[in-house]
Amino acid sequence: MAEDNRIPVTLIGLGSMGAALAEAFVGAGHPTTVWNRTAAKAEPLVAKGAVRAEAIGEAVAASDLVITCMTSYEATKQALEPAADALSGRTLITLNSGIPSHAREFAEWATGHGARFLDGAVKNVPQAVGLADTLIYYSGDKAVFDEYESTVKVLGGDTVFLGPDVDTAKLYEAAVGTTLLPALVGFFQGAAMLKKRGLEVSSMVPYSIKWLEMINSILPVLAEQIDSGDYSQAFSSIGLFHAAIDDEYQMGRDEDVDISWQAPMHDLLRRAVAEGHSEDNISALAEMFLKPEKKD
Amino acid sequence: MAEDNRIPVTLIGLGSMGAALAEAFVGAGHPTTVWNRTAAKAEPLVAKGAVRAEAIGEAVAASDLVITCMTSYEATKQALEPAADALSGRTLITLNSGIPSHAREFAEWATGHGARFLDGAVKNVPQAVGLADTLIYYSGDKAVFDEYESTVKVLGGDTVFLGPDVDTAKLYEAAVGTTLLPALVGFFQGAAMLKKRGLEVSSMVPYSIKWLEMINSILPVLAEQIDSGDYSQAFSSIGLFHAAIDDEYQMGRDEDVDISWQAPMHDLLRRAVAEGHSEDNISALAEMFLKPEKKD
Repeated sequence: MAEDNRIPVTLIGLGSMGAALAEAFVGAGHPTTVWNRTAAKAEPLVAKGAVRAEAIGEAVAASDLVITCMTSYEATKQALEPAADALSGRTLITLNSGIPSHAREFAEWATGHGARFLDGAVKNVPQAVGLADTLIYYSGDKAVFDEYESTVKVLGGDTVFLGPDVDTAKLYEAAVGTTLLPALVGFFQGAAMLKKRGLEVSSMVPYSIKWLEMINSILPVLAEQIDSGDYSQAFSSIGLFHAAIDDEYQMGRDEDVDISWQAPMHDLLRRAVAEGHSEDNISALAEMFLKPEKKD
Repeated sequence: MAEDNRIPVTLIGLGSMGAALAEAFVGAGHPTTVWNRTAAKAEPLVAKGAVRAEAIGEAVAASDLVITCMTSYEATKQALEPAADALSGRTLITLNSGIPSHAREFAEWATGHGARFLDGAVKNVPQAVGLADTLIYYSGDKAVFDEYESTVKVLGGDTVFLGPDVDTAKLYEAAVGTTLLPALVGFFQGAAMLKKRGLEVSSMVPYSIKWLEMINSILPVLAEQIDSGDYSQAFSSIGLFHAAIDDEYQMGRDEDVDISWQAPMHDLLRRAVAEGHSEDNISALAEMFLKPEKKD
């Protein structure tokens, strides 16, 4: 039920994340207008009290605060294009995935149409939307963030403003998010090793969780080392990782699992050793991304 | 100071991990004999109450329980070779890194010399040795584990017996540990992106920690999906990761960071899409390790 003191919100894009965002607003009592290209996706939300807009223009006109959660900035622009004139004077917050340069381009388009603009990134799964600990970060127009901070906290209690540059949220999203696919592929390789031996993958989950917690425990020191450029405190040296490479391939052959997806990481280790980082901590691998490769 | 009720222990190999293990035994009051190829490494431990053996034979003869922490099984065998006859009737526990097949070969050598043998893996950094939450797992001779469980708990409170097959500890070590290098390289790429923008890498650490906690929160479901082979509950589909590949390379060019180390992971995504897994959850990537690649 809508409460008098809750401001109206329009939510555009009802994929699994967008639907979760809309549901959080409905649940918190905001008059919530929703729109999706495939209208049927709005039905479960309408049943909970949201209002479905027939057209995008109607959706934008329904609220001063318009939040989009589409697949990309390009898709967002395409969806909003027919209602671009209606954006003038309204506030637009985008919560899609994307890269910094696309955020900058989109911000130019949105503010060019007279919208106040804030970009954000939901750093969790749809199931976590609305929880006190769920992290969502924003960057761009600070006045917009200040005005709507309490409103968007409905979506995630750990709401952070990263800075006035509109692409900062997507920069951090990319920088932080880069661990996801590699960590998952590592987990899947390990899972396959157990499954090939007839063991339950679930049996390794408690250990995998502890292992990632261990990695988390060393990140502050690794970050300090990269910030300072001093890698001499080596609790896990480049040389130690480098020395293990041959055994890894032997293990791949023994266990009949293809570990060749790790080859470029092994090349980074070899390059770091060749450049004299053998005794340095593993964090010195960051230098391989900072310095262009020396060509012969 | 040694207490009367603590059994004597010999610790062979005093790198950072071995020294931490020896220190834990000394701290718990065990009469502790230590040996290292480079004798000077024993000095800090002798100052704390350990006894330095002059020769490897003397070290092995000093205790019924001999624990080694060298760089590899091969290095362990080379160090113990001159004292091999003294192993008969004693208990040997190896806590080095290594791969399952090398654990099996070493077990054959050790038991061939009459030792009772248990293999183990310390799943944490040296600094965590001796803490209540520190995970160490073992596999092999269950009678040895039962007899010495309370003794080795001095090294880490979360002491687990994984099974009677001597290579199981190293199998889990490899399967669980495979997330380490990929997750770290992902973190280093992100760190370089921030540093190139003049931002502190430390500023992203709280978000990176939350991100790995998010990954941890989904591992149980991913493992269940791989165990069952049913990937249809897609909260993060293969297609979603696949669709992001081009933007990732655009971002790499924008931010002047080389993301090509991820190319084999992108190939795994492409292969999964080609094999019809686009709508499946990301966990279906495990199938790429389970099924041999189809050659044209």
